[in-house]
Amino acid sequence: MISFKNDYSEGAHPQILEALFATNMTQLEGYGEDELCEQARDFIRREIGDEKTAIYFVSGGTQANTIVITSMLRPHEAVISAKTGHINVHEAGAIESTGHKVEPAMSVNGKLTPEAAQAVLDAFEDHHMVKPGAVYISNTTELGTVYTLAEIEALSAFCKANDLYFFLDGARLGSALVGSDVSMKDIARLVDVFYIGGTKNGALLGEAIVILNDALKTDFEFLVKQRGALLSKGRVLGIQFLELFRDGLFYELAEHANKMALKLASGIAAAGHDFLTPPASNQIFPILPNALIKKLKEDFSFYVWKKVDEESSAIRLVTSWATQEENVDAFLEAFQSHSRE
Amino acid sequence: MISFKNDYSEGAHPQILEALFATNMTQLEGYGEDELCEQARDFIRREIGDEKTAIYFVSGGTQANTIVITSMLRPHEAVISAKTGHINVHEAGAIESTGHKVEPAMSVNGKLTPEAAQAVLDAFEDHHMVKPGAVYISNTTELGTVYTLAEIEALSAFCKANDLYFFLDGARLGSALVGSDVSMKDIARLVDVFYIGGTKNGALLGEAIVILNDALKTDFEFLVKQRGALLSKGRVLGIQFLELFRDGLFYELAEHANKMALKLASGIAAAGHDFLTPPASNQIFPILPNALIKKLKEDFSFYVWKKVDEESSAIRLVTSWATQEENVDAFLEAFQSHSRE
Amino acid sequence: MISFKNDYSEGAHPQILEALFATNMTQLEGYGEDELCEQARDFIRREIGDEKTAIYFVSGGTQANTIVITSMLRPHEAVISAKTGHINVHEAGAIESTGHKVEPAMSVNGKLTPEAAQAVLDAFEDHHMVKPGAVYISNTTELGTVYTLAEIEALSAFCKANDLYFFLDGARLGSALVGSDVSMKDIARLVDVFYIGGTKNGALLGEAIVILNDALKTDFEFLVKQRGALLSKGRVLGIQFLELFRDGLFYELAEHANKMALKLASGIAAAGHDFLTPPASNQIFPILPNALIKKLKEDFSFYVWKKVDEESSAIRLVTSWATQEENVDAFLEAFQSHSRE
Amino acid sequence: MISFKNDYSEGAHPQILEALFATNMTQLEGYGEDELCEQARDFIRREIGDEKTAIYFVSGGTQANTIVITSMLRPHEAVISAKTGHINVHEAGAIESTGHKVEPAMSVNGKLTPEAAQAVLDAFEDHHMVKPGAVYISNTTELGTVYTLAEIEALSAFCKANDLYFFLDGARLGSALVGSDVSMKDIARLVDVFYIGGTKNGALLGEAIVILNDALKTDFEFLVKQRGALLSKGRVLGIQFLELFRDGLFYELAEHANKMALKLASGIAAAGHDFLTPPASNQIFPILPNALIKKLKEDFSFYVWKKVDEESSAIRLVTSWATQEENVDAFLEAFQSHSRE
Repeated sequence: MISFKNDYSEGAHPQILEALFATNMTQLEGYGEDELCEQARDFIRREIGDEKTAIYFVSGGTQANTIVITSMLRPHEAVISAKTGHINVHEAGAIESTGHKVEPAMSVNGKLTPEAAQAVLDAFEDHHMVKPGAVYISNTTELGTVYTLAEIEALSAFCKANDLYFFLDGARLGSALVGSDVSMKDIARLVDVFYIGGTKNGALLGEAIVILNDALKTDFEFLVKQRGALLSKGRVLGIQFLELFRDGLFYELAEHANKMALKLASGIAAAGHDFLTPPASNQIFPILPNALIKKLKEDFSFYVWKKVDEESSAIRLVTSWATQEENVDAFLEAFQSHSRE
Repeated sequence: MISFKNDYSEGAHPQILEALFATNMTQLEGYGEDELCEQARDFIRREIGDEKTAIYFVSGGTQANTIVITSMLRPHEAVISAKTGHINVHEAGAIESTGHKVEPAMSVNGKLTPEAAQAVLDAFEDHHMVKPGAVYISNTTELGTVYTLAEIEALSAFCKANDLYFFLDGARLGSALVGSDVSMKDIARLVDVFYIGGTKNGALLGEAIVILNDALKTDFEFLVKQRGALLSKGRVLGIQFLELFRDGLFYELAEHANKMALKLASGIAAAGHDFLTPPASNQIFPILPNALIKKLKEDFSFYVWKKVDEESSAIRLVTSWATQEENVDAFLEAFQSHSRE
Repeated sequence: MISFKNDYSEGAHPQILEALFATNMTQLEGYGEDELCEQARDFIRREIGDEKTAIYFVSGGTQANTIVITSMLRPHEAVISAKTGHINVHEAGAIESTGHKVEPAMSVNGKLTPEAAQAVLDAFEDHHMVKPGAVYISNTTELGTVYTLAEIEALSAFCKANDLYFFLDGARLGSALVGSDVSMKDIARLVDVFYIGGTKNGALLGEAIVILNDALKTDFEFLVKQRGALLSKGRVLGIQFLELFRDGLFYELAEHANKMALKLASGIAAAGHDFLTPPASNQIFPILPNALIKKLKEDFSFYVWKKVDEESSAIRLVTSWATQEENVDAFLEAFQSHSRE
Repeated sequence: MISFKNDYSEGAHPQILEALFATNMTQLEGYGEDELCEQARDFIRREIGDEKTAIYFVSGGTQANTIVITSMLRPHEAVISAKTGHINVHEAGAIESTGHKVEPAMSVNGKLTPEAAQAVLDAFEDHHMVKPGAVYISNTTELGTVYTLAEIEALSAFCKANDLYFFLDGARLGSALVGSDVSMKDIARLVDVFYIGGTKNGALLGEAIVILNDALKTDFEFLVKQRGALLSKGRVLGIQFLELFRDGLFYELAEHANKMALKLASGIAAAGHDFLTPPASNQIFPILPNALIKKLKEDFSFYVWKKVDEESSAIRLVTSWATQEENVDAFLEAFQSHSRE
């Protein structure tokens, strides 16, 4: 059974495991204060072109989102998110558990727009309501779409104009960057804080929170500790980001993942099928006849995402740095063969 | 510079890294629902002798403490802890951040007694005060001491008699078990929930929360997710516990750590020095002349824990699975040589 | 300027003030443990026909909602509310501040239906999401509508079938009861907990939380205290509910309020105007031409609720126990006179 | 049975009730935005001599403490309090329920000193611990003692030097001011925020939060609303403070309460009895033989506070604005008569 279920089915890229091995017996400081973590931070700062950037490594995305949002808001403030945003749907109420409302905004293809965020501001009246304090987007989105530079610039301008912090969840940032006209430097210029996803792009685990806005830097390390995100062997995270950013491995892996997904998308589109959202990253959502889906399920594992009509459904196919092209080919072959039946 | 600063200066035991390598490219389910995690759970259940035990792997101790304590208490309830307990001092208010007071109880050598916990109950009056709902202990304690079976039995009986949950923080459980008359089965029989520390006993990271009391099992997975502790590549934690518990590696590593610490302790005691608390585990606290400490610092790194009088201080020496006996010998040699000066 | 802005523009019904005066110098126990509070509870229990009902007096609706919802949910659980529900919109994130998500459900005229609540359940998948744990409705609703007995029975059955607590916010319960086929006994039979609004029906301040479900009674007093709702002079609240429920004053006042509102509604409807929601309680929402609204604003104060089209808006008119019929007549006269212009 | 149990056994001072009556049917704005609240604020501002002071009326002390402390701290920060402080002992974990640790400091006679607070700062190391962010004192203290001007000045200087907010809980501020060399202007000059207790000094209910520090004023109204402290009939609180501060009633009432307590204290001291803490306000704690206490209990109600030795205990006697001198005389008479037996 070949899996296209997600981008965390395998372990880490071998180069990363080797680095773990190579440094394993070196005695290092704990809690992310070792030189390998510091080197990793420097590589990321180089990428961004800002030496004063504060960088913290944590082990997962929900942790990153919770800590960052807690750092941005006072108790009565809320964060605006696309209705489909991860923090609004798939984090078991992590944000609310810290006392903050997530204000859902309308979204198209998983993307937030200034207009949709403005509608939330328009509904706000006074101190009988939560006060919007920040805007959250994920890039790539939960529906595999990718923001353009113009879109992020527009959101950034909207946030500045309305005195809102702007936070970008980059659990799949690699895929977003190689799939769009946006660079890491652009992101750093346009948001107050973002995180770079390692887990879904070649690491065993690990997300790098990158803080640009000075106001958010103060005492951030306390929030990391309080939320249980300060690993005693912080090296585990640092080493991985060191490998990912030393020579561009981060982008190579994302590029491979996107290429594999788009090969799948091309093959499926060529057969005349439509997609729930336009294929743009390592997650694609083709709409297929239920009978075909059933046959594909015999040899491949993937999620059936959503019923579209009585006879067809959207499925989700996810590729990663580890996806082997021969498996993509096998899928397309099966797809074509079953389609002909 | 040889470090006796802590038990997380190195990476993982090589056998664990090799297991990570060996399984790296196998496609597995996410979120701890894979077969390797399940095998690891089975090995731990075998250790405990209870097949219905619920087991969750999380990445750190503060996470484990927060999730477990949240699962045990209603909003108005507090957890009793030794004043020196990790949750009371060194978790940046993680427990309070979930809404609960930590009720500090007097402790001797870092240990909680039924008498000290009873004093907290005695001070409790009515609904104008927080209501004690659980008891927390750490074993080994923050001062390197270890509970005896009789002591844990007494605390367990106290909790049962007073309708309090009993939770044991086992960040250094390996060292405690090999350094006392207590077995894992005893722990499982006497507490409602505990966790087994991997990070400080050979793993890269990872703690295994073990739930015995059925009342705490319901929906526990939601709390793990909400607190950001559900790794998408849950395999990373499962594989490590699998190695630790497959053939007793967990105990071997702890035994080595304790042996190294006690060798240090013997050498120091032989020279007539006293200790802040009786040496019993992989953390020891000898009281040494400041001049001697200064000289030792030239070649070894360790924490100066506490001023004892004008001329001497307690230092903390920590050993681990990775401590090399030659480094222990080097320390003792330097110690004797500096002592003679 | 005559106000139809809300039902809390005046102080208390004179009979209540007199009772405060009459008992003023009597020394009583504090914290709601006095005999006047106990008598008030007994009158309410008589109304309900259940002597075991637990009753707590608190000073406001947001307090009542927060305490009750906190008592019903575990940390990962959410409360389902109509999108327009007070807890979702107008309590400044009070529920989220206690860690819980409010799950908004579609509503028509401010009412929640089993179908809308079912849609929330249908969207729930697993522990990556918050788990619905309770259903919240307000009666009357924020849009002045009133639930029928059949509607509440359907919601009650839905909650039982799905293992959800059922909580009714009765900030304007008096108006709802006299404006529908529902009795206080019905409410008590069908929900797990509700509260009876005093503030908007003749009291200076005060809401009576009524707990029917035994599971919610345990330690409830701690939550009242912890949320700052336990008044030291609890008598202030008890005396008022004693007067309201001694001889039916509660219903008389609500009846007057509804009668005044419906007189306004009849007059407005007679002139051919439509309403945003069907008039049914002491809050009505006529849709009027903007020009007419402007003229009415010269002599009367009220809220313009919502733009309906370019030329007309819905306004909100609220009556209360204190509304003088001559003011209603004055409004209708001005209304007719301006309409003719 | 004559009660010396507390200072909230009676209702309100008659002048306050009359004011409630006199304004009862006037239609006023809700939520504390009416002119009577504004007048009350102006009277308090006059008292303080600062026109920019922000003032909010809430219904109880736990509410006031929770809202103020929430406004001062970021999530990882703690508030330092005397170990015996109300927030540390008698608010059912209200502060912790908002996520913050209360750091207990040693106290003598219920008072916090800069030295005791410094000891908390000295124990603070780094981001593994909560960070002290504010200092809380109550005046009068829970043990009836009163701070001198010099003491408050010293604490104020300590807070400024250490970048800590300084908050004074004035549940019994009237008694403290008339019982010391401290004026309301002094308090306003020395703290960042304080509250003036109405409930225990003649009001039915009500505390006035007074914010001096501009940094704490921003959005404070949201926190008041979110914590359920924004009464729709805010007039109820405003009217009472208007009466208390129009012509000095606040001080007159406190003076009477103190006078009555000190008369009790003099009589008891004259008989050679000692006190747990020096009598200074409307709460006194004489140490009496248990046999005498038992006899006094026949005709008077009061709390037995603490066992002192096998044969004697400290009792608490509390007086108030409503204490009748004849009852004080009756107590002293009984006291002398029983003493002679």
